[in-house]
Amino acid sequence: MGEDQQIPDAAGLSRRGLMGLAVGAGAAGLAIGGGAGIASGVALGRARERRTADAVASGDGIHQPGITTPVQDHLHFAAFDMMARTTRDDVASLLQDWTYAANRMMQGLEVSATGAVGGSPEAPPDDTGEALGLPASNLTITFGFGPSLFDERFGLAAQRPAGLERLPAFLGDDLDPERSDGDLCIQACADDPQVAVHAIRNLSRIAFGRARIRWSQLGFGRTSKTTSDQATPRNLFGFKDGTANILADDAAALDENVWVSASEGPAWLAGGSYLVARRIAMLIETWDRVRLSEQDRIVGRDKARGAPLSGGDEFTAPDFAATDGSGTPRIDARSHVRLAHPDQNGGIRILRRGYNFVDGNTDLGRLNAGLFFLSFQRSPDRYITVQRALATDAMAEYIRHVGSGLWAVPPAPAAGQSIGAGLLGA
Amino acid sequence: MGEDQQIPDAAGLSRRGLMGLAVGAGAAGLAIGGGAGIASGVALGRARERRTADAVASGDGIHQPGITTPVQDHLHFAAFDMMARTTRDDVASLLQDWTYAANRMMQGLEVSATGAVGGSPEAPPDDTGEALGLPASNLTITFGFGPSLFDERFGLAAQRPAGLERLPAFLGDDLDPERSDGDLCIQACADDPQVAVHAIRNLSRIAFGRARIRWSQLGFGRTSKTTSDQATPRNLFGFKDGTANILADDAAALDENVWVSASEGPAWLAGGSYLVARRIAMLIETWDRVRLSEQDRIVGRDKARGAPLSGGDEFTAPDFAATDGSGTPRIDARSHVRLAHPDQNGGIRILRRGYNFVDGNTDLGRLNAGLFFLSFQRSPDRYITVQRALATDAMAEYIRHVGSGLWAVPPAPAAGQSIGAGLLGA
Repeated sequence: MGEDQQIPDAAGLSRRGLMGLAVGAGAAGLAIGGGAGIASGVALGRARERRTADAVASGDGIHQPGITTPVQDHLHFAAFDMMARTTRDDVASLLQDWTYAANRMMQGLEVSATGAVGGSPEAPPDDTGEALGLPASNLTITFGFGPSLFDERFGLAAQRPAGLERLPAFLGDDLDPERSDGDLCIQACADDPQVAVHAIRNLSRIAFGRARIRWSQLGFGRTSKTTSDQATPRNLFGFKDGTANILADDAAALDENVWVSASEGPAWLAGGSYLVARRIAMLIETWDRVRLSEQDRIVGRDKARGAPLSGGDEFTAPDFAATDGSGTPRIDARSHVRLAHPDQNGGIRILRRGYNFVDGNTDLGRLNAGLFFLSFQRSPDRYITVQRALATDAMAEYIRHVGSGLWAVPPAPAAGQSIGAGLLGA
Repeated sequence: MGEDQQIPDAAGLSRRGLMGLAVGAGAAGLAIGGGAGIASGVALGRARERRTADAVASGDGIHQPGITTPVQDHLHFAAFDMMARTTRDDVASLLQDWTYAANRMMQGLEVSATGAVGGSPEAPPDDTGEALGLPASNLTITFGFGPSLFDERFGLAAQRPAGLERLPAFLGDDLDPERSDGDLCIQACADDPQVAVHAIRNLSRIAFGRARIRWSQLGFGRTSKTTSDQATPRNLFGFKDGTANILADDAAALDENVWVSASEGPAWLAGGSYLVARRIAMLIETWDRVRLSEQDRIVGRDKARGAPLSGGDEFTAPDFAATDGSGTPRIDARSHVRLAHPDQNGGIRILRRGYNFVDGNTDLGRLNAGLFFLSFQRSPDRYITVQRALATDAMAEYIRHVGSGLWAVPPAPAAGQSIGAGLLGA
């Protein structure tokens, strides 16, 4: 911390680059898509063309990208804290700069028109360069505002949504504060991990002197499907996961379960959502010693096909009333699928968007692995309801929730505006 | 440690599965490729077909796969230590079981014929299941033997290659013993990280009670090219890396630089190689503040195109004698490209196969990121020569070597034999 404060002008972004960002921010809505703002560096011309010609994930102009976008293969997630003595203006300027850079990167462009090599040789490059030549890779960048952003520091307390507070403690929580919470969060998803890492790295760099990473998480192997043509992936327990997820084209379900409506307020959040992140450590070596029938019973589905134990195939609705010859429920009362099911939770569905993670190993030689759970829902209490229902989850013996965060995810900014403009007036 | 020892019989592999492994090991050379040994589970039939139909990376029968195989997108590397009180027979049986399972997984099959769901519901599955339905993804699994395997424990001291000892300390080393060394190592590379993780996880599980993970590392964004049609990737300093790497079809260069010849001995290592792993932390936030001309000078190439500063394009040979108008060398004497270049090191070339990594962040909010350097060479002293030449590397200010390991990589086993059979007689 002390080190950062000793060199407040050394962010590495050149003065020209910062001016470019400042000028660009206002025109971002126009510049993106119109092809303007692309540096004319001859050397990089081809690389840039290749990136922009590749799949570019764009939002619908109403909601931020990265929520209903078909889940990409890789995640880099970062929670940020505003630095000491920063002001509301710093928050606003940071979000302007982030919006500008994010819009460029989602197009496969560098973070500024100056880029990695387009400026003066005597200035640090504006872009760190490791994504040069890579396709846009469906990169999406999604921003969220944590409860702590609305404390006394920035004069935003009056605009805090009623439900935006730290999640309550759940049975079995073993949370590490250093893997929880944060004033701001960024979810970067892409089909190439280097593209997602490049995005977080450069946004972190742009934040220099204003905010810095509190914690971050890489993930792979999406654990949800969000379109009907995506195969259901498997989590690290070896089971299909996310079979009953809300699909991106199910507008009614999204309105009912994911998007904050205009009437719910606050106004700046209409069309937005709430993002829950939970780092869930999985005791995979212990799980791997559990007999197959017990694994199936705990999940409530069969491992091979993902079909509910009441019968049918993966997409057959579970029949919680079905019993075997002896009157025992085919789907155990404590099974994960039953406790989490909308039928058992007043119809609540959440949009899951999680990833597997493996972060090296423990001192015991076990993999430090699990599920980085991400979900979007219309209100925090919807997640809380489902998570409380899981208190008796038979799976709880094999997992530990070790990190947690909740953020309000504002809607997409209007053309020419920055993310959170409705909150900060920028 | 105590925990593992309390439950020596609870490895999770069913007795039937272990018998299958034991039986299968002897016949592995026949079973693989012939399609034998595939469980007849109806539910998984389609998934299995899909996996085997996908690209399968196979060795040439002489050298292990994963050395000259075109570099895949993802890495999971693990170093293992044999457990206390294990014997030479345990090493041999472990390598038999690993060979059998590795051969199956590289074909896109499960670790045993019993698999994740093919056995009794009352037994733990033999395969953990998270790769079910995924393509083989060019998975390669490469095994190595560390210097410590040849200490007094297993009676192998007489067969230790002369050069197989812990690497000497290099200037600037800041090694963490918990990220260094290991009796055995496994390099799993695949185009899908879930497939690489599945391989290490299951091999670790098979090792239960005999060996366990000492340290492990995930990587993405290969930093080398090994075939002429692979684009040169960029490392996290934003520079192209591996431009001058040895290509897989350059048999003469491989013989000269990578493969241990029959005359060098020991006999069990002929056709093998030596693997060096170095975890190199990159101080990327500091690097990002360095002006472009200085970045170029440190690397000795230009950031945009990767061309040497003496002129030409990426693949032009550097001209270390070239000077500018004032007589200053165009390529700095302390530049990385010059110090590491074969012309400066008696013609030594090494086969690089490294990956980028990002393991969360430090307490200062900086990314814990860098290069997981992997190289194969005909003798350890070839790596030592090059690394010593880098003592004055201008880049040293921006990197820290924090982990290190050296392993002898035996040749591919003959049909029906296990990896290391020449060493262990199995």
